[in-house]
Amino acid sequence: MSILLIAQNRDMKPVRDTLLREDPDLEVELWPAVRNPGAVQFAIAWNQPGEVFRQFPNLKAVSSFGAGADHLLSDPAIPPHIDILRLETDSIDRQMADYVEGACLQILRSFSQYMRQQMRGEWNQLPHTTREHLTIGILGLGRIGSLTARELANSGWNVSGWARSEKSLEGVRTFHGASELSGFLSATRILVCLLPLTNETEGILNLELFKKLKRPAHLINAGRGAHLVEEDLIYALDTGILQSATLDVFLEEPLPDTHPFWNRERVTITPHIAAITEPEDVAGQIVENYKRVISGMKPLHVIDRSRGY
Amino acid sequence: MSILLIAQNRDMKPVRDTLLREDPDLEVELWPAVRNPGAVQFAIAWNQPGEVFRQFPNLKAVSSFGAGADHLLSDPAIPPHIDILRLETDSIDRQMADYVEGACLQILRSFSQYMRQQMRGEWNQLPHTTREHLTIGILGLGRIGSLTARELANSGWNVSGWARSEKSLEGVRTFHGASELSGFLSATRILVCLLPLTNETEGILNLELFKKLKRPAHLINAGRGAHLVEEDLIYALDTGILQSATLDVFLEEPLPDTHPFWNRERVTITPHIAAITEPEDVAGQIVENYKRVISGMKPLHVIDRSRGY
Repeated sequence: MSILLIAQNRDMKPVRDTLLREDPDLEVELWPAVRNPGAVQFAIAWNQPGEVFRQFPNLKAVSSFGAGADHLLSDPAIPPHIDILRLETDSIDRQMADYVEGACLQILRSFSQYMRQQMRGEWNQLPHTTREHLTIGILGLGRIGSLTARELANSGWNVSGWARSEKSLEGVRTFHGASELSGFLSATRILVCLLPLTNETEGILNLELFKKLKRPAHLINAGRGAHLVEEDLIYALDTGILQSATLDVFLEEPLPDTHPFWNRERVTITPHIAAITEPEDVAGQIVENYKRVISGMKPLHVIDRSRGY
Repeated sequence: MSILLIAQNRDMKPVRDTLLREDPDLEVELWPAVRNPGAVQFAIAWNQPGEVFRQFPNLKAVSSFGAGADHLLSDPAIPPHIDILRLETDSIDRQMADYVEGACLQILRSFSQYMRQQMRGEWNQLPHTTREHLTIGILGLGRIGSLTARELANSGWNVSGWARSEKSLEGVRTFHGASELSGFLSATRILVCLLPLTNETEGILNLELFKKLKRPAHLINAGRGAHLVEEDLIYALDTGILQSATLDVFLEEPLPDTHPFWNRERVTITPHIAAITEPEDVAGQIVENYKRVISGMKPLHVIDRSRGY
């Protein structure tokens, strides 16, 4: 019996070493040099190559190495009877809340614009606004969205949130379902996407949606690149429907050198760092789930495949 | 009897108009076109020219147009018997707390470094840290420093504060006096200067002080330009004693075109915008103090000239 670690653009050796510190008796395989494919019962995967899972006939469950599992749910090489899991850690939630609040304060205090002025050697005081005028709307009130909404409300922001099903959060005005989306958007000046990527949410950040926001509006996307229709964002920025966009995720990552986002004054790019999974934060959870999987118990944080999260 | 508004690099007409909306019967003079210098009893001043106050023989009090009054305290044309006042508003306090928290989140989530990478078209995930490793130390626990410290503590940061005299703030570890400064600095990773500028605090941000911080350390100066020894900052950045500096105030403002700060990768420059006085936030306070001054009552927010704040 073994755990397989598999990622295409991340070095998983530190993860293996951390797992072995957690339990020195574990068998950990590091893709692609897998010694015994037949022994693999549990896999931790990030950005895995297509077809790779067909090599492991005794696989029982696969966990994402992050909070999102869309790369597993959409992988046809993972048979339907295999459990797909995600990681849930306070560290990921906390990083995301900090990223979003940092981006909101950047918007409030014009830090990005001042940095661009600095690059030009320009001393110019810009008009400023107040928190009261910048209601934040969080799309997605799962574990991460809820914490982010509560933290922002606790810091004095006006916060509302939208989810597919009804939610109640202290200090946050909540909306749910397709029928309440327009009402949610019409009061929102800073729209934050923290949705899971599903068939329903793919392309949700499009021109029609941007037009329903309270202007001038700002977008923060820390969900997935495929939530955003990229050409709609550029059009919305060019026509003044949106004033700025802060993007951590992209359809293609790393963002291609020739992509028009790189040179846009009103686009802030971060390289998918809003929430980084650190081995020491997740080793205990991975080992616990491995033990559950090999002993036939229900693992933690299983994705509902029909909902997609 | 009249109020005089005087500023060299700010248009005070909107202030006059707001005062007249507050009380249409006021006599408001706008420097330099003063019709009746002898009638001026109260002045609101920002960056006033030298000697200008000698023209107003019946002046009884002068108020700063901001929270700091060092430009008035150091003006030899204001006789010692004249009260020097400052403005105190929730808006100024709030803006400053937002600026400082935004700058701290920029440091935590490396937003400035990512923006510089974006300008170079560079996709590169930087090592990240956590709030627990970035204890914030606030120099100065007056009205603004106290609010900032409390807000940061409320948002989950480790915060300590230092002031000349003993203070107690919930959730904030406080230090006071020269004897406790080194202890305060040795636990601080992000040093925030919100001190008033006095003979004692001029040049306090110098190499000797930077060396006492916990490394790698960061500086945020939103006090006054003269708190900082500029060449010591550059030396500290070049030698790794400091990792970054976020500066809102400078010895000479606007910052001269040829100043070495402009092109430093690790220096973030904002053009003295951390706390901007808006006429509507202060009109009531100015009119109240004018009435107190002309009727011989003690005005609000008088500076203790011996302390300098």
